[in-house]
This record gives sequence, C-alpha cells and structure tokens, in this order.
Amino acid sequence: MKLYDAAWAPSPRRVRIYLAEKGVEVERVMIDLRANEHLGDAYLEINPRGAVPALELDDGEVITESAAICRYFEALHPAPSLFGTSPIEIARIESWTRRVESDGYIAAVYAFRNSIPQLKDRGVAGKWPPIPQIPDLATRGAVMWKAFIEGLNGHLAEQEWIAGDAYTFADITALVTVDFAAKAGLDIHGCGNIGRWLEAASARPSAGA
Amino acid sequence: MKLYDAAWAPSPRRVRIYLAEKGVEVERVMIDLRANEHLGDAYLEINPRGAVPALELDDGEVITESAAICRYFEALHPAPSLFGTSPIEIARIESWTRRVESDGYIAAVYAFRNSIPQLKDRGVAGKWPPIPQIPDLATRGAVMWKAFIEGLNGHLAEQEWIAGDAYTFADITALVTVDFAAKAGLDIHGCGNIGRWLEAASARPSAGA
Repeated sequence: MKLYDAAWAPSPRRVRIYLAEKGVEVERVMIDLRANEHLGDAYLEINPRGAVPALELDDGEVITESAAICRYFEALHPAPSLFGTSPIEIARIESWTRRVESDGYIAAVYAFRNSIPQLKDRGVAGKWPPIPQIPDLATRGAVMWKAFIEGLNGHLAEQEWIAGDAYTFADITALVTVDFAAKAGLDIHGCGNIGRWLEAASARPSAGA
Repeated sequence: MKLYDAAWAPSPRRVRIYLAEKGVEVERVMIDLRANEHLGDAYLEINPRGAVPALELDDGEVITESAAICRYFEALHPAPSLFGTSPIEIARIESWTRRVESDGYIAAVYAFRNSIPQLKDRGVAGKWPPIPQIPDLATRGAVMWKAFIEGLNGHLAEQEWIAGDAYTFADITALVTVDFAAKAGLDIHGCGNIGRWLEAASARPSAGA
C-alpha cells in the first residue's frame, strides 16, 4: 500500500503521528501542496476530492479521511490501542476527538483559510467550485478558538491526557490542532494546563513524524 | 442510563435511528430546543456545551457527541454491526461518514444557522459567546451542498448503500443530513440515485424514530 502524504498540513500529520505511535511503517508519496499538486490531474485520479492524506491499497482501492485511515490501521494492528478498548474508553476518546475537531480544529481552519491571499476562492480545503473567502468567518474562528482553548485548559486541569490517563487518538487530534492554530496566528499561550499537556505531547518521538 | 434527546434536530435523530436499528431501548428525556431548554442552567449542568444528545450513565458520567454515543452502544452491543467488522469495512464506513459530515452536513448547517432570524448571534450550535450569523456563509453552504449532492449521487450509481452492500452508520448519517438539508431549504431532488437510496433508507422502520 501507499500513503499519499504532505508536509505542513494537519491531517496528513495526524496520520503520521498515529503511525509513529503504532510503530507501523508505510510507503509514502509526498504531495506538494504549495505547488497545488493535490489539485492536479494526476492526484485527482487517486483522490477526486483533492485532499491529502489518502491511502492506496494494493488492490487499488483508496481510503480517504485521516480518521478513517487511522481506524483502518487500528483494525489491522489493534495493540497498543489508540481508540480505546472498553466501551467507556471508546466513548471518551471519540467524544473528545469530535469536540477538538468541531470546536477547535474548525476554528483554526476558519481563521487560516479565510485570511491568506494564497487561498483566494479556496475557502474550503480540497477540490470544490470556487468558494470565496469570508473575512467574517476568520473572525468567527478567533472567537471559537478562544472559547475552545479555555474549555480545554479547564479540562486538562483534571486529566493528564485529553481522554483520561492514557495518550490516545484524541491527543493526536489536539496536538495537530494546537500546532496548526499557532501557525494560523491564534493564541495558544497563557493557558497553563495546555502548556503542560503540549510539552508532554510534543516530547513524544511521534510528534516529529 | 438516560439519553437527553430532542425533536427535529439531526444529531439526536442520528442516535435514535442508530438505537432503533440496533434494537436497543434507553430511557429518554426530551429537551425543548425551541424553548432554548438546552441553553438553560439545568441542562448546562448536564452538558456545559449546551448540545443535544447527551448520554448520562448510571455513575453520573455524561457522554456527548452523537457519534461517540453510538460507538458506546456499539461496544456494548456489537451485533449487528453498523460500524463494520473487517478493516476495509471499518475504513469505508468511517470515510463516508466523515465525508457526509464535512461536505454535506456542514453545508446544511451553514445554510440553516446563518439565515433564520431566530438564531441571531447563534451562528454555531450550542453554548458559545455571541456568534453573529454570516449571510455569505449561508451562500457558501448552498454551493457546497450542490457539489456534495452531485458527488453522492454519482457514488450511489455504483452502490446500493453509502458504504457498500449493507446499511451502516454512514447511511444513518446521510439520512439525517439529507432530511435536515431539505428542511433548510436546500435542493435534494433531481438526483435519481439519491432518490432511490433515500426511499429505501426512509422505508426502514428506524427512519421514524
């Protein structure tokens, strides 16, 4: 199989960190997002949505969506589990993963994609009809981010990792989100518990993947 | 345990359809969204995010996020599986669930929440600081919806159900999304394959849950 990967972007990094935590090695093909290779004909034949990552299996089937790719590998290599094993662990990890995505990751995407000139008419990631940027949505992203990061900071006062005592897929999701938000110019400082968590998550060898 | 549920809204319906498909019965408490009961002090003590559904366990722990609640029940009652059992089934179902959410459900939410007067300053669902509506985002939602529904229609030309030969969580997600989009005034007609799929999904007893 082959993993279509890209530098810098948060979703491919989510898969890389996951694979590093699992100790799974996969052949990788780098797609150059800055050269818009993900929107070129060759890559659109692999993933018509123009999104990275994508996992091409040996029979030619292509799995898209970073969470789906990680769950595929989780089913192939269940241990160590990053999605939980007991019902309550599974629920906590999924709940926090979803919360980080819908409240935090989306906020960072709003701030990023609606403000930089290079993404004019590409307000949503991937292959779409022209979608104009909306400056007010960048503003909304900043409001959402502030509320999200305050909530996460309070949560991390009570827990070592996002979904409890163990590092899980929810932490991977939060790490790529917080690092991406910082690049998008959002404030991730001034939150003591997040600083403690971020330091611990970033110190794991997988964070450099 | 107790499921905090609400009429009309798509996320609580996703859980209801899931439970009906599984044949699982749970005590329910109805929250009146039109009376803003989900943003009142009593409910915010249960779910500070002000979102429905929420599942309160007997020990007091509360699970939020509809997908997390469904995965909790899936772990308790694995058969019949709605999230897949083999790695490739799991990957297809998660990938399509995510695609329906990020391209279709979000489009419908953009169109709905940014246009109706009752949701002034509540541009994002749940408990947030005031978030102004953005009319341009309703327009973006309509553009995204059109592209999404065309893509889904093409996909359903080749498959009986969203993720293959069997009805899964991806179909539940798509059913609540398409029905919600129709209520938001988006066009779901003129797409032959979606009509065929929608009729089959809506004919299942679970659709009335």
